[in-house]
Amino acid sequence: MADKNLNDLFLDTLKDIYFAEKQIVKTLPKMAKAANSPKLSAAFEKHQVETEGQIERLDEIFELLGKPARGKTCDAILGIIDEGKEIMDEYKGTAALDAGLLAAAQAVEHYEISRYGTLKSWATKLGMKDAVRLLDQTLLEEKKTDDTLTKLAETEVNAEAA
Amino acid sequence: MADKNLNDLFLDTLKDIYFAEKQIVKTLPKMAKAANSPKLSAAFEKHQVETEGQIERLDEIFELLGKPARGKTCDAILGIIDEGKEIMDEYKGTAALDAGLLAAAQAVEHYEISRYGTLKSWATKLGMKDAVRLLDQTLLEEKKTDDTLTKLAETEVNAEAA
Repeated sequence: MADKNLNDLFLDTLKDIYFAEKQIVKTLPKMAKAANSPKLSAAFEKHQVETEGQIERLDEIFELLGKPARGKTCDAILGIIDEGKEIMDEYKGTAALDAGLLAAAQAVEHYEISRYGTLKSWATKLGMKDAVRLLDQTLLEEKKTDDTLTKLAETEVNAEAA
Repeated sequence: MADKNLNDLFLDTLKDIYFAEKQIVKTLPKMAKAANSPKLSAAFEKHQVETEGQIERLDEIFELLGKPARGKTCDAILGIIDEGKEIMDEYKGTAALDAGLLAAAQAVEHYEISRYGTLKSWATKLGMKDAVRLLDQTLLEEKKTDDTLTKLAETEVNAEAA
């Protein structure tokens, strides 16, 4: 037990985000279907395609490590997604639904930004150059998605909800 | 049901982050005690004092709304904190413990950044100037704490773990 090191922590966290991404890719089509705004719906669909690519990058990192690509239950993403489902139920048919969906998606993005930031930082420390490159690609995508959602909230979705 | 609007969503999300902050303020002393690095421990203690101030700002916003300050179970923060506890158990006594604690704290920070960003954006749309000011103060503190943790990871904690 006391022998666990940063390599173990990296692998555990990789499994955590792998599980999370698999949950996210199942949830995004439901959010796209629920959204009233075609622009918000399109943003969710675009991010779904991106998420599939992000899962492939994680597969590559597991391969670099010589480990099977396997998820580990991530309570954080399950909690974040449950809150999103609650919003979908409680605000169904209201003008505020899209604002709530968008907020739920940004909570997901921020979880991912935190995890990929951490993994990139650890991969750098561990000298895993190829992993750093792959993690950085995803990190930039997540930050861009978060920015897109912020702009969509300010220009369209919140006005509709108020 | 169909009458719910952005005011309701704002109040629901305020209750969510109020519950979350109350959980965080209980967890930070445990993290400070668990950390090996005195600098990391001090960062957690500093953030605990800040969190108490952030709860007071939320109290003020409830008062501005004329509503009782009351939390609502936030599954997201419970999941994020559970993951942190798991790290504390699984990496106890290892050189990687601090890196794991720091990553858990950054996941908490990012959840808060996402929630306060959303609340500030909605308060702006709803014309709640005083609430915008209070939310912005907390948002800046959370971003600063996240930056502090990133620097601590890069300069101290990850090197010790590798």
